[in-house]
Amino acid sequence: MAASAKRVEQLQRRIQELEEELARERGGGQGQRARIEQMSPEVTDSNPYSRLMALKRMGIVKDYEKIRSFAVAVVGVGGVGSVTAEMLTRCGIGKLLLFDYDKVELANMNRLFFQPHQAGLSKVHAAEHTLRNINPDVQFEVHNYNITTMNSFQHFMDRISKGGLEEGKPVDLVLSCVDNFEARMAINTACNELGQIWMESGVSENAVSGHIQLIIPGESACFACAPPLVVAANIDEKTLKREGVCAASLPTTMGVVAGLLVQNVLKYLLNFGTVSFYLGYNAMQDFFPTMTMKPNPQCGDRNCRKQQEEFKKKEAASPKQEVFEQQEEIVHEDNDWGIELVSEISEEELKAASGPLPDLPEGIALAYTLPNKEENTIDGATVQESEESLEELIAKMKSI
Amino acid sequence: MAASAKRVEQLQRRIQELEEELARERGGGQGQRARIEQMSPEVTDSNPYSRLMALKRMGIVKDYEKIRSFAVAVVGVGGVGSVTAEMLTRCGIGKLLLFDYDKVELANMNRLFFQPHQAGLSKVHAAEHTLRNINPDVQFEVHNYNITTMNSFQHFMDRISKGGLEEGKPVDLVLSCVDNFEARMAINTACNELGQIWMESGVSENAVSGHIQLIIPGESACFACAPPLVVAANIDEKTLKREGVCAASLPTTMGVVAGLLVQNVLKYLLNFGTVSFYLGYNAMQDFFPTMTMKPNPQCGDRNCRKQQEEFKKKEAASPKQEVFEQQEEIVHEDNDWGIELVSEISEEELKAASGPLPDLPEGIALAYTLPNKEENTIDGATVQESEESLEELIAKMKSI
Repeated sequence: MAASAKRVEQLQRRIQELEEELARERGGGQGQRARIEQMSPEVTDSNPYSRLMALKRMGIVKDYEKIRSFAVAVVGVGGVGSVTAEMLTRCGIGKLLLFDYDKVELANMNRLFFQPHQAGLSKVHAAEHTLRNINPDVQFEVHNYNITTMNSFQHFMDRISKGGLEEGKPVDLVLSCVDNFEARMAINTACNELGQIWMESGVSENAVSGHIQLIIPGESACFACAPPLVVAANIDEKTLKREGVCAASLPTTMGVVAGLLVQNVLKYLLNFGTVSFYLGYNAMQDFFPTMTMKPNPQCGDRNCRKQQEEFKKKEAASPKQEVFEQQEEIVHEDNDWGIELVSEISEEELKAASGPLPDLPEGIALAYTLPNKEENTIDGATVQESEESLEELIAKMKSI
Repeated sequence: MAASAKRVEQLQRRIQELEEELARERGGGQGQRARIEQMSPEVTDSNPYSRLMALKRMGIVKDYEKIRSFAVAVVGVGGVGSVTAEMLTRCGIGKLLLFDYDKVELANMNRLFFQPHQAGLSKVHAAEHTLRNINPDVQFEVHNYNITTMNSFQHFMDRISKGGLEEGKPVDLVLSCVDNFEARMAINTACNELGQIWMESGVSENAVSGHIQLIIPGESACFACAPPLVVAANIDEKTLKREGVCAASLPTTMGVVAGLLVQNVLKYLLNFGTVSFYLGYNAMQDFFPTMTMKPNPQCGDRNCRKQQEEFKKKEAASPKQEVFEQQEEIVHEDNDWGIELVSEISEEELKAASGPLPDLPEGIALAYTLPNKEENTIDGATVQESEESLEELIAKMKSI
């Protein structure tokens, strides 16, 4: 077995060398293919950007080349994150920062991107190799660690605030493609502190629903403002809660969620179409609920509250900054969460909510409910005051 | 350059050999990884089916293993077709038949799946190599030809009617992932003649909308029953019609359409959730219109009319076969197309149609309109009677 493992390593290295030689041979220069200094709209078989630059002629995007000026961090390089990174790479994003601590396993082969020969490699390194090969014009920075550990969290904060296209500047967007509560809360904490705009994504354990969410600190609800929302899929709760089983997943649902996420990223960065604040996907019924949520003035994260104050000041100085008021009427003004919901679905479709608070558009439910206000304190400071650890709180919340 | 081309070929061959050795080394047997005789729900890192088999425990799918008993033909292995084939491969489909006559180009690199080192290879062979590597349990049959030419069309008909999992039996589903009218019409003609159930997919030239459609000959509208429907994207018509430019495309839109298509395939084959007859995707507004369409009794394709007669007989013998009557009320009973529309969008949302006929749900428009009834004769027989070639008719329709 040891001999076999060694041979596997040799083969992996040799294949990589030959792939690089092949790319040099094709590109006629160094690197995988010759780097392209300027994106061209020229319609030739050898121009990897012709179909993207055509978005300008089609009247969709004013300045597609601007894509190269953006840096995006992708946290979690699994079923959604790997496809997200591949789409951004193929779109010619300026810089990608990848964060993950996991290794590729054969058990991941039911989702797109990774291939069996990469089993055993770290996800970020395997992804970097494939992505660099696909588009050598993109800058990559990969971090093989768990952002929820104390030291890594500090490094993660440092890199999203300084790892932009120009070193020292922040990234333009952080994308959460993680599969657990702790990591989402860590990203939320970091982005609230830094005032960093980010997008959340998620897929249900039964593999048939998912969502994406845009979070602008101070302006839209953060992850701690309310329990996370999920797209209800009419599945027996008991079936979901059985212990000792792995979550189900499908390449279809994950591909759709990654596609909707990166589409929202492109619309946000390149300024076309309508950027969605929340877009759900229910695969059982092909139902796609949308909504927007204002931040909770009583949010447990003090940096969220601080961002809300700052946003109010900015708003007062220049009223044009308001996002929600431009949109539809507010449907529910009063609930225990202090959250104002704006439904993009018709009044009629707004049926009874799945839980007591807050009322939600049809098809969207809370991932779980919180027992009382005392326990809705999820940022570090408040947790320390209540003498409960973040882990304990999370465990409590999860057990409900 | 000749020396370089030779070296490229050598490198491609050598990489392939090493990849195969690597797979043998890992799998301990022949083939890329050891073939798996029986899908297991066992939760281990090395089981590529654990996350799919978990769909049973989650109560979503009754018998996931049944996926191995199906053969699916994918026509067109481009931006949508390649991702469609990859998703089905990773899901462990029994057999995949791929049809395409094109070669991989660097200009395709803005979409998922193909990689720069595959440029110059035929799409079906490059895809087969990658897919076999990802999942050696799947049977592949690839055809490197254009199905719209006379000889190839006959061979295509032959393979979809006899190339099922068991040779001599038909495939279970045909998926149209082509990018032009002629190829769609060829698939429609073949499926009407054979009574073969198929699904259509498409992405607009401006890259920001797409759709999928299920066609059950005799039971739902075929491609010749009405001009093809597209998701309107509020784009200036003139911008779209400029000559000498390539269509725009995005990995996001194509990934979403492929994901929705394969999700519909899984729901149809494995019998879960609600299978969509028509599902549109408008990326600009994140709007997803759905609808169903009855076949046109005056359809120009005589095999469609024949299938309609047969379906009526079946319906009379066993009323449970009815699909549309189980669903919602019929919104528009009378129009020049003889098509009855069933809207799955609320009455209120049914606004003025984009063209005079038929009335369509908000957001869906006709790809083009037909000038008069005489020219709506698109199956071979009628075309001969009117002494106009299929090509001439198509050219006329396109020029409108």
